[in-house]
Amino acid sequence: MLTIVVDAMGGDNAPACVVEGAVEALRESANRFELLLIGQEDKVTPLLQQHDLGSLNLRFVHAPEVITMEDVPAIAVKSKQESSLVKGLKLCKAKEADAFVSAGNTGAMMAASLFVLGRLPGVLRPTIYAYFPRLGEGLTNIVDVGANVDCKPENLVQFAEMLTIYQRYAASIDNPTVGLLNIGEEEGKGPEYLKQTWNLLKEAAGENKINFIGNVEGHDILAGKATIVVCDGLVGNTILKFGESIPHFLGALYKPALEKLVVSGQLDQAAAALAGKAFKEIFEPFDVEKFGGVPFLGVDGISIVGHGRSSSRAIKNMIYMAEHMIEQRVNERIAAMLS
Amino acid sequence: MLTIVVDAMGGDNAPACVVEGAVEALRESANRFELLLIGQEDKVTPLLQQHDLGSLNLRFVHAPEVITMEDVPAIAVKSKQESSLVKGLKLCKAKEADAFVSAGNTGAMMAASLFVLGRLPGVLRPTIYAYFPRLGEGLTNIVDVGANVDCKPENLVQFAEMLTIYQRYAASIDNPTVGLLNIGEEEGKGPEYLKQTWNLLKEAAGENKINFIGNVEGHDILAGKATIVVCDGLVGNTILKFGESIPHFLGALYKPALEKLVVSGQLDQAAAALAGKAFKEIFEPFDVEKFGGVPFLGVDGISIVGHGRSSSRAIKNMIYMAEHMIEQRVNERIAAMLS
Repeated sequence: MLTIVVDAMGGDNAPACVVEGAVEALRESANRFELLLIGQEDKVTPLLQQHDLGSLNLRFVHAPEVITMEDVPAIAVKSKQESSLVKGLKLCKAKEADAFVSAGNTGAMMAASLFVLGRLPGVLRPTIYAYFPRLGEGLTNIVDVGANVDCKPENLVQFAEMLTIYQRYAASIDNPTVGLLNIGEEEGKGPEYLKQTWNLLKEAAGENKINFIGNVEGHDILAGKATIVVCDGLVGNTILKFGESIPHFLGALYKPALEKLVVSGQLDQAAAALAGKAFKEIFEPFDVEKFGGVPFLGVDGISIVGHGRSSSRAIKNMIYMAEHMIEQRVNERIAAMLS
Repeated sequence: MLTIVVDAMGGDNAPACVVEGAVEALRESANRFELLLIGQEDKVTPLLQQHDLGSLNLRFVHAPEVITMEDVPAIAVKSKQESSLVKGLKLCKAKEADAFVSAGNTGAMMAASLFVLGRLPGVLRPTIYAYFPRLGEGLTNIVDVGANVDCKPENLVQFAEMLTIYQRYAASIDNPTVGLLNIGEEEGKGPEYLKQTWNLLKEAAGENKINFIGNVEGHDILAGKATIVVCDGLVGNTILKFGESIPHFLGALYKPALEKLVVSGQLDQAAAALAGKAFKEIFEPFDVEKFGGVPFLGVDGISIVGHGRSSSRAIKNMIYMAEHMIEQRVNERIAAMLS
């Protein structure tokens, strides 16, 4: 039976949301795996006592320290060795568990995962991706979104290869297309390192490692031209944060526009409320907290990070993601392709 | 009196829209400047004949060739020396005119401007910016948006300096703030070239050349944290194209959402239509074609490019922009700061 460590202290709504998500996952899956809930005893055990623990495949592990959202990742990982985050990953390293999930400090998760778990054989730099909604079915997956800057062509190619394996086996996308984010569609466009990357991606496609469709541009992300969009972490991180800011920005424009229609008597209050609600709902595909998290690709173990605002549903989904990644032997496949 | 060359053949709605915009500018300004309308005689003169030319300070200049939106910039500029675009810029170079405006092929405009006009003293690489709507007053101006990739720190600093002068004198922004687009706010974040850029921007701020406020992130663009956001052309171009794709993407989600409310009887058709119209209107700040164009900063002359979809209003505004740039001696000020 698989054992998954869940960081009870990770996320804005921790530990309550995490406890709830873990309990839900076990109930829904009929105890298909074992969960180790790790965190501060005085905070977590009162919450656990509200549940019928005898019926759940769940153990509590005490970790006295907590890495917060405000902690500087590199410093926190070194100085807080007794945190749920570092201690939880160490359980994986010691083979006492198979995976770790947390909605905590992303930077610290990344630093600790790399530090504690190390890299898979052949991997130059582990990476993290993010998904975007798109027209039609499916999602656009952008890699890297901030774990790596100053990327070299060989790094970008590995990102494409690792995410291809993840999409193929963990997300069941048959033959995910890979696009290289650039300033123009044509071959030979853009900065030097992207020209070299283009050549290496073409080679990898020749070896049937990836399904490379060439350069894509900024407008192709929401249009859904490629399943995987490869770029340096600076570009990916900027797009990610820009995208996350859109609902608030447009809401701040649309709300007064509807109110104006109500004040002028053109729209009644109920209709405006309905239109406003429907407007909010179109942004739900942007709402990462609903879906779960993303794995660090390339580390020698399974480490899944969720958004700080993760709901209990997101925590539950992250647990299922971990289970699925193990079952699909994603890491073995990555090591096999890259080494 | 100033003489401004207007490319009659530039833009999707050329030459009709361009003729209209030029005539409007002269009527509205009471012939404050002279316009040279340049283009193919058989296409343009029939349109001109519809106006009372005797009352307008307008001359027509024949240019037999046209650079289209499909032309490859570097090739077209060399092979189509008799195009309105190249010939118009040459009139500026020969001091027969003071500025050139076009809604044509941006890449070709950029290549031809650099080729024909050359660079201002001290300018390493001319640049082009784009404006974004933001919460509150004003706009966020991103530089560079595709003219330059593989940017070096000294290029980025010059972009900030040139756009600061433009914003200060041509856009009347008192002391425009400059942010460096990065993956985090803190000093020392991001790729090597941005760390070096940070230091150089700090120096430039110490000399009172710019008003540097530090790093900004993707979500700060629409939030309006800085008036000027500096980045490599790959990042800026990606954000620009991503931003332009948002209205279509969200419209494709919101339209069916409203229709569903109509079908289910929750919203009447008229209310849905009003809500849909208000929704479309919130994207108008994104709609560059309404406002005009942007100048190439750093070339030894005045060259203003508009969106391919430019309306006659946009053409008119570009003519005013050119006039204002000359009057405010923007290029002299750039040369003085950079040399």
